[in-house]
Amino acid sequence: MQKKTFQFSSKTVTYYFDADFSYLEKLVNKEHAVIITDENVFDLHKKKFAGWKTIIIKAGEEFKVQSTVDLIIDQLIQSNADRKTFLVGVGGGVVTDITGYVASVYMRGIQFGFVPSSLLAMVDASIGGKNGIDVGVYKNLVGAINQPTFLLYDFSLLKTLSKSEWVNGFAEIIKHAAIKDAALFETLEKNSIGAYQKNKTALSKLIVRNAMIKSAIVKKDEFEKGERKLLNFGHTIGHAIENMQKLPHGHAISIGMAAACMLSEQLADFKSSARVVKILEKYGLPTKTDFKASKVFDVLKMDKKKEQTTMNYVLLKKIGQGIVKPIPVDELGELIQSITMAR
Amino acid sequence: MQKKTFQFSSKTVTYYFDADFSYLEKLVNKEHAVIITDENVFDLHKKKFAGWKTIIIKAGEEFKVQSTVDLIIDQLIQSNADRKTFLVGVGGGVVTDITGYVASVYMRGIQFGFVPSSLLAMVDASIGGKNGIDVGVYKNLVGAINQPTFLLYDFSLLKTLSKSEWVNGFAEIIKHAAIKDAALFETLEKNSIGAYQKNKTALSKLIVRNAMIKSAIVKKDEFEKGERKLLNFGHTIGHAIENMQKLPHGHAISIGMAAACMLSEQLADFKSSARVVKILEKYGLPTKTDFKASKVFDVLKMDKKKEQTTMNYVLLKKIGQGIVKPIPVDELGELIQSITMAR
Repeated sequence: MQKKTFQFSSKTVTYYFDADFSYLEKLVNKEHAVIITDENVFDLHKKKFAGWKTIIIKAGEEFKVQSTVDLIIDQLIQSNADRKTFLVGVGGGVVTDITGYVASVYMRGIQFGFVPSSLLAMVDASIGGKNGIDVGVYKNLVGAINQPTFLLYDFSLLKTLSKSEWVNGFAEIIKHAAIKDAALFETLEKNSIGAYQKNKTALSKLIVRNAMIKSAIVKKDEFEKGERKLLNFGHTIGHAIENMQKLPHGHAISIGMAAACMLSEQLADFKSSARVVKILEKYGLPTKTDFKASKVFDVLKMDKKKEQTTMNYVLLKKIGQGIVKPIPVDELGELIQSITMAR
Repeated sequence: MQKKTFQFSSKTVTYYFDADFSYLEKLVNKEHAVIITDENVFDLHKKKFAGWKTIIIKAGEEFKVQSTVDLIIDQLIQSNADRKTFLVGVGGGVVTDITGYVASVYMRGIQFGFVPSSLLAMVDASIGGKNGIDVGVYKNLVGAINQPTFLLYDFSLLKTLSKSEWVNGFAEIIKHAAIKDAALFETLEKNSIGAYQKNKTALSKLIVRNAMIKSAIVKKDEFEKGERKLLNFGHTIGHAIENMQKLPHGHAISIGMAAACMLSEQLADFKSSARVVKILEKYGLPTKTDFKASKVFDVLKMDKKKEQTTMNYVLLKKIGQGIVKPIPVDELGELIQSITMAR
């Protein structure tokens, strides 16, 4: 086991890498803990949950909504959960997002920790304290920023991960490399999902490296005034099309990254779109979809990154170097139109 | 106008006492503000809202629930509210509680301020950053602690206040006096609601004094580790019976204070229950109700002040001096039983 800590504004978060699920008993008092997981994770790992109070939610982004929060709160009340209760989210990004959110508002805030079970959650979703739920087509429209007490990484959970979930995880890994780590980008170019699946050491290193990239960015800028915005690379168009077209998150942001690369060529003199598109495709990710520019634009107008008439858009200057550029929302409409027609 | 500021952990709150509603235009950009109010306040003061984007909710504690939050969020989306949008809650405690809560979670938190319109909101509910909603019979089970940017006091709003709302406000004023300010308690004993209604200067001083008592306590202990617990005097049994019996908040906590006085005689050698009961009755507040001890106890078990098997109960040592005493939940059951039978 490898232990790292990050000090965020209001909380210290401890990461336990390469740990076993059973270590959870050392981190929380089993009597006062409630696990939140989804039916898929629960069915795949039933034995691990023995003896833990567990709330099981339906699996999938479409359940990351208020009605699921309501159900969880009802069950917490049923089990007499109080201010000393510790919530543990065991699952992918939907479970960790909703667990963090419930923990932020139940009795005005109780403690919580995560056991990410998907690659995407391990390298991205469970890190950084952003939590929340979707409202209609609007991703994460409601939520809070609140750090978990711990993140427990049991890599054996990845054994049951589906192919499409591996692909999803690599979308965020490629994003980290594109905005921040050119060397990682090159390593990824030389590798493949299959290679990582066969090499436990390389995979473990990859996950830790990505968790560290994201954590370092968040530590510098927890409330997203500057640096943290970089993590939204691919997420502007990505989020707009994700719920509209019911795409997996990785697919949506992959298409978003490809689109952002084209905008980067127009606005930031970026030259390597082809390399980004190639690596995305190598990891099984789509880079195109049919989207109706005007509909995407309607959803974009509600993006949290919008500030009145300007959208903070993340572009690449070069591989490994993301930049944030405020673009007038009106212009963005035209730009999106031009990309759509070009494709 | 009288301006005061309090520095809380994460925010400075500015109080504008004896201001005019129209001063709101100086505090927020009208273009980017959305007012939340209830139908009663809106109907009584229609002219004041001219030119402001306004969301009107139904009036009453029974609407301080998630479905109202959902409606507000839908309307914020409709009006393209974004991270720069400023929410202003204009109303009593229900409006300020729900406005603060929506502002805490919409887009993971936007700015907000309050214009309290009831005496209760002016001296208590709008101060201190606690916000939230009820879940079933459980008061404020879901919420956050998050300070508003400002509080604007327009005393002319009190002109339209009903008798029962005056009585409600005095319940919290008497509470402040009982736990913290013996001199204020004596002043209150010499006065009456009618006297304050006739004397604008005395009323204004009373409101400022009470707002300061509460703010000073919150400033010392924003997250309720110690001192702030005192403000829960009367609120343990009070909250338990409020939604069960659909009582006005002031009535419920008045009964709660009377009960807490009796517990104080048993557990803290308090001698002045009769004085407290007398002043509550002088201000039109009930001190008794029929409650079924076992049902109250069931609701109490979910009280946020409970920590596993102990409840932090606020008692009086003497007039003007509240104390917090942890009482085992089991014992509390018996104590409540004994009070109920005694009445």
